[in-house]
Amino acid sequence: MKLPPQAGASSASNPDVFDASCSARHALELISTKWAILIMSALAAGPMRNGALLRKVEGISQKMLTQTLKDLERNGLVQRHDQQTNPPHVEYSLSAIGLSLSETLISLDRWAERNFPELDRFREKYDTAASEAKAARRRKIRLP
Amino acid sequence: MKLPPQAGASSASNPDVFDASCSARHALELISTKWAILIMSALAAGPMRNGALLRKVEGISQKMLTQTLKDLERNGLVQRHDQQTNPPHVEYSLSAIGLSLSETLISLDRWAERNFPELDRFREKYDTAASEAKAARRRKIRLP
Repeated sequence: MKLPPQAGASSASNPDVFDASCSARHALELISTKWAILIMSALAAGPMRNGALLRKVEGISQKMLTQTLKDLERNGLVQRHDQQTNPPHVEYSLSAIGLSLSETLISLDRWAERNFPELDRFREKYDTAASEAKAARRRKIRLP
Repeated sequence: MKLPPQAGASSASNPDVFDASCSARHALELISTKWAILIMSALAAGPMRNGALLRKVEGISQKMLTQTLKDLERNGLVQRHDQQTNPPHVEYSLSAIGLSLSETLISLDRWAERNFPELDRFREKYDTAASEAKAARRRKIRLP
């Protein structure tokens, strides 16, 4: 993600995620993707290797896992530990600053797990109402 | 977003955001985008009209705002109040279930605003190290 050179400096006095030119927005963007949230939530339980993350975070591709881990490492949220052995043994863990976010991310996960049935019900009701309205409009067009 | 027909039902006994076929994953996906987080954070302060949201959430396009509000309304997180006046007056607000998420989202925002300088520093260090490593590899190739 490209940032204007002074993005951080210009907004440091009054950081605001709503301000598109503030580095706080960049920090929010980094952590507000489902893959970043799921990877960091998984690592909150302890260090993991690539293969274990790939199995835990169902549906993620190797490419997306690699890219997201690299973004998180580049921004200091995740640490990569290469034990320099043969065969290679590489582990990922949350840094101190990554850990400081984990409680909030886990609370997002728990919210989703607690509330999805209500979201499902709303979505079903909304879609039914929308298709009924569409049918009513069609009938209206056909009548004189 | 398409979901398998029994996505919710099949996982209702043990909801898990890591399970790609669980509706809890769908709920997490819905709320884990920067625009959904920023719109819901803005609405946590009270009902807002389209124009006010467009100004508050800097950088969002009208198209993305409309689409995200519709997704949030469809899933029951945001309510749309059309006062049926001329000129039209439409307001958006968080539903009860949307409000139940707002504390967590605001804590994400505050985390980003508090920690972005450290993320910026890490990123700078990481990029410097990466470009130095690249330069070192180049020198190595040139030498016999």
